[in-house]
Amino acid sequence: MLEANLDDQTGEALGYVMQLLLDAGALDVYFTPIQMKKNRPATKLSVLAPSTARERFTQLILRHTSTIGVRYQTWQRTIMQRHFETVTTKYGAVQVKVATYGDIVKRTPEYADCARLAQQKNKPLMMIYQAVLQQLD
Amino acid sequence: MLEANLDDQTGEALGYVMQLLLDAGALDVYFTPIQMKKNRPATKLSVLAPSTARERFTQLILRHTSTIGVRYQTWQRTIMQRHFETVTTKYGAVQVKVATYGDIVKRTPEYADCARLAQQKNKPLMMIYQAVLQQLD
Amino acid sequence: MLEANLDDQTGEALGYVMQLLLDAGALDVYFTPIQMKKNRPATKLSVLAPSTARERFTQLILRHTSTIGVRYQTWQRTIMQRHFETVTTKYGAVQVKVATYGDIVKRTPEYADCARLAQQKNKPLMMIYQAVLQQLD
Amino acid sequence: MLEANLDDQTGEALGYVMQLLLDAGALDVYFTPIQMKKNRPATKLSVLAPSTARERFTQLILRHTSTIGVRYQTWQRTIMQRHFETVTTKYGAVQVKVATYGDIVKRTPEYADCARLAQQKNKPLMMIYQAVLQQLD
Amino acid sequence: MLEANLDDQTGEALGYVMQLLLDAGALDVYFTPIQMKKNRPATKLSVLAPSTARERFTQLILRHTSTIGVRYQTWQRTIMQRHFETVTTKYGAVQVKVATYGDIVKRTPEYADCARLAQQKNKPLMMIYQAVLQQLD
Amino acid sequence: MLEANLDDQTGEALGYVMQLLLDAGALDVYFTPIQMKKNRPATKLSVLAPSTARERFTQLILRHTSTIGVRYQTWQRTIMQRHFETVTTKYGAVQVKVATYGDIVKRTPEYADCARLAQQKNKPLMMIYQAVLQQLD
Ligand code: NI
Ligand code: NI
Ligand code: NI
Ligand code: NI
Ligand code: NI
Ligand code: NI
Ligand code: NI
Ligand code: NI
Ligand code: NI
Ligand code: NI
Ligand code: NI
Ligand code: NI
Repeated sequence: MLEANLDDQTGEALGYVMQLLLDAGALDVYFTPIQMKKNRPATKLSVLAPSTARERFTQLILRHTSTIGVRYQTWQRTIMQRHFETVTTKYGAVQVKVATYGDIVKRTPEYADCARLAQQKNKPLMMIYQAVLQQLD
Repeated sequence: MLEANLDDQTGEALGYVMQLLLDAGALDVYFTPIQMKKNRPATKLSVLAPSTARERFTQLILRHTSTIGVRYQTWQRTIMQRHFETVTTKYGAVQVKVATYGDIVKRTPEYADCARLAQQKNKPLMMIYQAVLQQLD
Repeated sequence: MLEANLDDQTGEALGYVMQLLLDAGALDVYFTPIQMKKNRPATKLSVLAPSTARERFTQLILRHTSTIGVRYQTWQRTIMQRHFETVTTKYGAVQVKVATYGDIVKRTPEYADCARLAQQKNKPLMMIYQAVLQQLD
Repeated sequence: MLEANLDDQTGEALGYVMQLLLDAGALDVYFTPIQMKKNRPATKLSVLAPSTARERFTQLILRHTSTIGVRYQTWQRTIMQRHFETVTTKYGAVQVKVATYGDIVKRTPEYADCARLAQQKNKPLMMIYQAVLQQLD
Repeated sequence: MLEANLDDQTGEALGYVMQLLLDAGALDVYFTPIQMKKNRPATKLSVLAPSTARERFTQLILRHTSTIGVRYQTWQRTIMQRHFETVTTKYGAVQVKVATYGDIVKRTPEYADCARLAQQKNKPLMMIYQAVLQQLD
Repeated sequence: MLEANLDDQTGEALGYVMQLLLDAGALDVYFTPIQMKKNRPATKLSVLAPSTARERFTQLILRHTSTIGVRYQTWQRTIMQRHFETVTTKYGAVQVKVATYGDIVKRTPEYADCARLAQQKNKPLMMIYQAVLQQLD
């Protein structure tokens, strides 16, 4: 996890940086609203990346944001095993992510598939999700 | 109440604007973290000012922030009647704001007085507050 | 809508006030994190109540919070028509709220029913929701 | 301004709705983090739209989000007059928005132009902005 | 400390999970508003638990939330020593937590006791707190 | 990094503590809005300090805030090398921080200098910044 507190960069530029870091292969990028000294509303940038890619992401952050320092620390992760299954609804086919850990099993319709169908069929996204869930036993 | 959504101004500059608006006589100025389009973390600026001063504060906001528009709307307010009393503690004298509305009475030690005593006596701020509250019946 | 900015009341006390206002019949109560002058992290309290109850809620807010002023303004609302239907799942019966507006129809499993079943059957809340959604056509 | 408090819709679905409302012609769409009853982290959706389009946006919100009610209210706006000028930098041409109100004049490089050049030239966005600002007198 | 970023679970369900984790013995559970990719408002779940209970809480989070991964890391803590004293006010008895660390001593009225008296006596919570503080020397 | 979650201290007192910790030599102090149990809006205090000063800052936090515990953890940091250069604009001289890391070079006008000139010359802060940027090649 790499982090930087940003009080001298615009939100417009930060939105650009989020996309740039995702395109560069970050596992996750997120912003947290924070409050810094001198009454400054600010944003904490957090980037999850493999520790082998730390120097590369440090350079991306230093190059593309206003910060002059990046702090980092290693977190461990427990990740469920995943595979994908296809579910066919009356609106079309949707990939469902099946995640397992011990006896825990979770099925999540893929957002991108549902959003694509929602737009093609001009239906609310929630209606597509619900159609997928009804196909799961 | 005047408001503007700001996604193209730094937190550093916004902290400066908060002080500038308070110095110009705003009743209250506050920031709310918001999330705008294109993944932009942003800040909503809210300024409470008498409606007679609206044009003056509109110009201050347009001049000193990056926004090209200010929205505004009139809110009504119910304000308690206030007077001040002096309470003497072992650390020194503190003004207490007494606010009343019908049968509701609230006494609040003045922050500035407590903070000044805390620094002079090198005591935690909370200890000063508590000393004042103990003097209230 | 009634609002107050609170920088001199603890979160502990604000949690207490939220429940008190809901118990008093507020339609909705919510908190927004804001940033006030002098580097103060603060909370905006918002209360939705019928305009006929405004004076009553003003007094509750003045009595139970640290604010000395409440601002208010009337908002209009468009509300969907609602009725309830019962859906029977393998875990038990759940009320489903059916909301309609023109040709828009939405069905939402009642949170309280699902939560109760989740606890009785020792199942994840999401599993109960999904079982309800599968019963909807 | 139309608003709805959402505690029963996922962030994934809300990101989808933001884009949908912008595509439908909303002047601005933004999210504010709020805290609702029963320990629920929630999101306030705010949509700025011309009052003539209010019914259309009300229906979009009711159809595509989980809310069963939309509240609304008219805000006035003071908007600076705007025109565009082209500035040529060593990286390429950028449109600059010139906004005026009385004696107030602000020039802002267009984000989209700068972002496009930044990607084409593989330079930090801030470097492009700075190159544009240096061309302004 | 265990953490998960949640963009595909509703606030309603997250409120349920907070209570579930507290009931399971978490030392602390809190939510932070964050902003994730694709314009998604999201919530970071943080759980403080003894490191010996990490696997148990990992499973609770994986079972009851939508996340497919939990990250974790060990933090050290400095905790003040605590004991309780009883203070008698005109409204009734209240436990006061006395916390010490070196020469630092802090006394905090127990929230639950004060809230109970406030409801029994139909008094503002702040009035009960103040009555307790006046009994402390 | 030292952290504490605060739900029983006012924003007024927290603003005071931020200044106190900065005056005591903290590298950075910031607040994050969080949501704790029992519907409490709360604030996470984060303090960046050299690990050699950890005990001193732990005591400051325990003495001046309501928390009875402080958690801490070591983060590594990558910091750009910095030196200052003076830039002369038509409004006066401004220090510019030049930060370098490998082939990355960033120049940032010093906030304090720009703010001072903005007030002396009665110009918007952004106009001063822009004048400085125009002097950079
Ligand atoms: Ni700075
Ligand atoms: Ni399978
Ligand atoms: Ni813009
Ligand atoms: Ni008096
Ligand atoms: Ni105050
Ligand atoms: Ni029906
Ligand atoms: Ni609900
Ligand atoms: Ni022109
Ligand atoms: Ni997802
Ligand atoms: Ni004792
Ligand atoms: Ni407590
Ligand atoms: Ni140099």
